[in-house]
Amino acid sequence: MNYGQLFELIKKKKSFLCVGLDSDIEKIPPFLKKFDDPVFEFNKRIIDATVNFTVAYKPNLAFYESRGVEGLISLQKTIDYLNSFGDNIFTIADAKRGDIGNTSKQYAKAFFEIFNFDALTVAPYMGKDSISPFLEFENKWVILLALTSNRSAADFQYFEDKNSKKLFQEVLHRSKEWSSKENIMYVVGATKAEALADIRKIIPDHFLLVPGVGVQGGSLEEVARYGMNKKCGLLVNSSRGIIFASNGEDFADKASAKARVLQQEMEFLLKENNII
Amino acid sequence: MNYGQLFELIKKKKSFLCVGLDSDIEKIPPFLKKFDDPVFEFNKRIIDATVNFTVAYKPNLAFYESRGVEGLISLQKTIDYLNSFGDNIFTIADAKRGDIGNTSKQYAKAFFEIFNFDALTVAPYMGKDSISPFLEFENKWVILLALTSNRSAADFQYFEDKNSKKLFQEVLHRSKEWSSKENIMYVVGATKAEALADIRKIIPDHFLLVPGVGVQGGSLEEVARYGMNKKCGLLVNSSRGIIFASNGEDFADKASAKARVLQQEMEFLLKENNII
Repeated sequence: MNYGQLFELIKKKKSFLCVGLDSDIEKIPPFLKKFDDPVFEFNKRIIDATVNFTVAYKPNLAFYESRGVEGLISLQKTIDYLNSFGDNIFTIADAKRGDIGNTSKQYAKAFFEIFNFDALTVAPYMGKDSISPFLEFENKWVILLALTSNRSAADFQYFEDKNSKKLFQEVLHRSKEWSSKENIMYVVGATKAEALADIRKIIPDHFLLVPGVGVQGGSLEEVARYGMNKKCGLLVNSSRGIIFASNGEDFADKASAKARVLQQEMEFLLKENNII
Repeated sequence: MNYGQLFELIKKKKSFLCVGLDSDIEKIPPFLKKFDDPVFEFNKRIIDATVNFTVAYKPNLAFYESRGVEGLISLQKTIDYLNSFGDNIFTIADAKRGDIGNTSKQYAKAFFEIFNFDALTVAPYMGKDSISPFLEFENKWVILLALTSNRSAADFQYFEDKNSKKLFQEVLHRSKEWSSKENIMYVVGATKAEALADIRKIIPDHFLLVPGVGVQGGSLEEVARYGMNKKCGLLVNSSRGIIFASNGEDFADKASAKARVLQQEMEFLLKENNII
């Protein structure tokens, strides 16, 4: 999916919601255990219940890898199911990969060809040649970590040079030269909504993937105030707040309701900013 | 495996060689294609041929993930085979993971419990709480990226504060306080052997995992000169130079010969430094 198609999808769904499929087998409703693949069954029902309110889905690889080969089978089925919706869903592998060139090429193959995701989260520590191989795939996206939503983000991301430029700002400055808004987005945690205003000075046009709304404490309204641009430019992620809204047989209905509340708030914000 | 056991293994094998199992299915000898699982067959023969000269094996996850579920099955068989050697082999998952706490916990489960590796490479960008979950496993190791061997390592790892401290130095300074030499090692590329002397001032006692000898151009002698400590403190990795030494039916013999040459050079260096 390209930049224009993503923007059209946002306008069509009146939403910039990303649902994080952090589908921990220990946390899914117990009644699903009777199915052959409880995690896929869970994901499928979550997707069906939320797809009208949701632009993007983001399986978090750790929750699949932690079940070994079986987990990867659940992931394969999940991405195949997501892809059956075609351009009605944008798909993100939250894998935070990044390695030397010939290795990154293999990761690109894994996520863009084998699993056929639209986008992959990538860690910037190893620099340009660790990221370039991902940028060579047409209509595929790198989502580069800039400012993350965890408490220890400041440990290194706030490391400052002599001009008070922080590492995450250096990541933005350098990496925006490697390609364009057409295939790089950035992870920017919602717990630092004010920081979004400064980030927008560096990258006014790029999409931002914003985790941390909900359980981690960020506010959607603030994210939109400081981070929204003319093409929306935001994908706001919620994981546990939606997918684990209930632990009972009503989990999909409860997830749907939670997603709908977020979509309605997003619709309001999109209208307020004259995007729809 | 703990620090003391690793040192004993190095003394026993008179080697600090790590063999990288970057087992690209496109590059393994064609005659192996007749087997059900050519990559596992390749790995098994490489391991058998090199185990007397090798302290550690390091499957590079990208080369398994790029084959989807099938690749993970090859990885599972490979680590099971490695683990059948017990404490005669130290195992490293070269996966460069790192995410917020609850996600890192899942990765720790994946690599330390499900696959049962001794060690995992981890990227530092997200700070302490992305790394702590890995440090809670007894006799398991974090191998944190500090200074990598790729050309673009300088993009961010050389980002300097007002006192000319570079980011990779800040990573060393901070992270060494999070635990001890007993369960953190660092990745330090051999292409910057002189940098090892400065690194040793910050972390005199920790083990270093050193890639980049061989194809990437680093010199083993220089690595030992600047990086060896009283407990050796080095695991030097070679991947393609060993495993793809030949593309024919003699690939295992050729790999064995290449590993033996490195082991003999290592034995000489260990003796020169009065370690054995």
